[in-house]
Amino acid sequence: MEIIRSVKEMQNKMKELASQETIGFVPTMGYFHEGHLALMTEAVSENSIAITSIFVNPLQFGPNEDFDKYPRDEKRDLRLAEETGIDIVFAPEQKDMYPVEMTVAMSMTNRVDTLCGRSRPGHFDGVGTVLTKLFNIISPDRVYFGLKDAQQVAIVDALIEDLNFPVELIALPTVREPDGLAKSSRNVNLKTKERKEAVWLSRALETGRQMAVDGQQNPAIIVKEVTDLIKNHTSGTTDYVELLSYPNLEPVHSIDQQVILAVAVKFSGARLIDNLIFDADGNLIRRLR
Amino acid sequence: MEIIRSVKEMQNKMKELASQETIGFVPTMGYFHEGHLALMTEAVSENSIAITSIFVNPLQFGPNEDFDKYPRDEKRDLRLAEETGIDIVFAPEQKDMYPVEMTVAMSMTNRVDTLCGRSRPGHFDGVGTVLTKLFNIISPDRVYFGLKDAQQVAIVDALIEDLNFPVELIALPTVREPDGLAKSSRNVNLKTKERKEAVWLSRALETGRQMAVDGQQNPAIIVKEVTDLIKNHTSGTTDYVELLSYPNLEPVHSIDQQVILAVAVKFSGARLIDNLIFDADGNLIRRLR
Repeated sequence: MEIIRSVKEMQNKMKELASQETIGFVPTMGYFHEGHLALMTEAVSENSIAITSIFVNPLQFGPNEDFDKYPRDEKRDLRLAEETGIDIVFAPEQKDMYPVEMTVAMSMTNRVDTLCGRSRPGHFDGVGTVLTKLFNIISPDRVYFGLKDAQQVAIVDALIEDLNFPVELIALPTVREPDGLAKSSRNVNLKTKERKEAVWLSRALETGRQMAVDGQQNPAIIVKEVTDLIKNHTSGTTDYVELLSYPNLEPVHSIDQQVILAVAVKFSGARLIDNLIFDADGNLIRRLR
Repeated sequence: MEIIRSVKEMQNKMKELASQETIGFVPTMGYFHEGHLALMTEAVSENSIAITSIFVNPLQFGPNEDFDKYPRDEKRDLRLAEETGIDIVFAPEQKDMYPVEMTVAMSMTNRVDTLCGRSRPGHFDGVGTVLTKLFNIISPDRVYFGLKDAQQVAIVDALIEDLNFPVELIALPTVREPDGLAKSSRNVNLKTKERKEAVWLSRALETGRQMAVDGQQNPAIIVKEVTDLIKNHTSGTTDYVELLSYPNLEPVHSIDQQVILAVAVKFSGARLIDNLIFDADGNLIRRLR
């Protein structure tokens, strides 16, 4: 496994490789958990060269967000990446990714004023900007994301379509702890009591999905049930519980299409998100491709 | 010469080619004049595959600008392109380039609130957006622009640097009529009298540059002379005469670095622009690379 830290070097390397190989790319902010590793394993199995990037992107953190607190452990990440069979880790310095004040500003005008985007203004602008840079540096054929960050997947889908990136978007299912909690780098910041309560995010979502399976078509009734379950069983503050079309992320009046049921809950140690995507009959959508 | 009209087809074609060839790309809005043809000839001579695009990009025209009036003659363009040795012409339909309302918005935050950018709000946002799309569709190694659109060259420079496009920017000298008038697709819209007066744009710029050669270091004195010459010899309305650093496009207090002396003049039939780029001694910069 090769580790490259210079943008220029990475770009030259990819110019060489792009000719003969199919390139699979997993962009990350590091501090790997099984979710990341599942993406890497898939990238390794589907491509002749698999690459991951580790870069905690300052542009996608708000002024009051946890950029400094965001967990980092590069040594462990490199070991875990190597075990998946990843060929190249791209781990650039911040000053190499953002050497000068930028002239080009990217912003997202749809799919953002809802879910996490509503409470994180500018977050997906930063995500879109860094992914544009990484796509140009790596020139991947396929790019891998987890469905846990379903709004991010919807934004990447729009980014690729709107700007014609020659990249295939592959979104894989959320990886969960044995009790159902979605894996996240932020889980380590939960207090012990909060970690126990956190299982109620996935449990409430699953209850909501079961209501759709049982014929409930009214989004408001499902959203209320999910909201109540989380309120009654956790000490966290619910940021949102929403049921929207997917990937357009628009309000629906009836569950007659593919939808996302999503929650965000703020605990004292970390803000957690989770979601389920399902069709009109409540059947889980496990993998977008 | 091959003509391709579908974005998807173009992208597939380029995936094939990118491996073995170096790709030179000349993005245009068509209605070719010698300026365009010089760029194509250079692209043909420097690359194994040379491509031009013809696309009048609605996104870079303001609501009161000349999108409908912009001259078009595809048949003639294809003949002229073929004569230069161009391998592929990419001429997409508007609905293929902009099939849905875009989620991603790009805007330029530096280098735009001056020269043409000041009177054309959003123009360079549209230029940046369409070039991002074209770069992603074509995946060129080198991209060619004329220095006549010097502010556009400065914007493309920032676009490539900020977003890490793996593309080399090559800017070639302005091609001129025998009397010095810069070639432009819009020249055909000038009235006969205006066409004669229009020579005073290049003549005034050259006078300004000669003042720098003769030791004049005060930008304000040069700008006043150029302004007066155009005012006294044409019926046009001067949009701006400016002397700025290049390519940063910031005001200078003394000519002690590479600068651009640029003008824009509105005639009844067309708005014309011209510029000279020169160093602290007044020596003309003919080609940026």
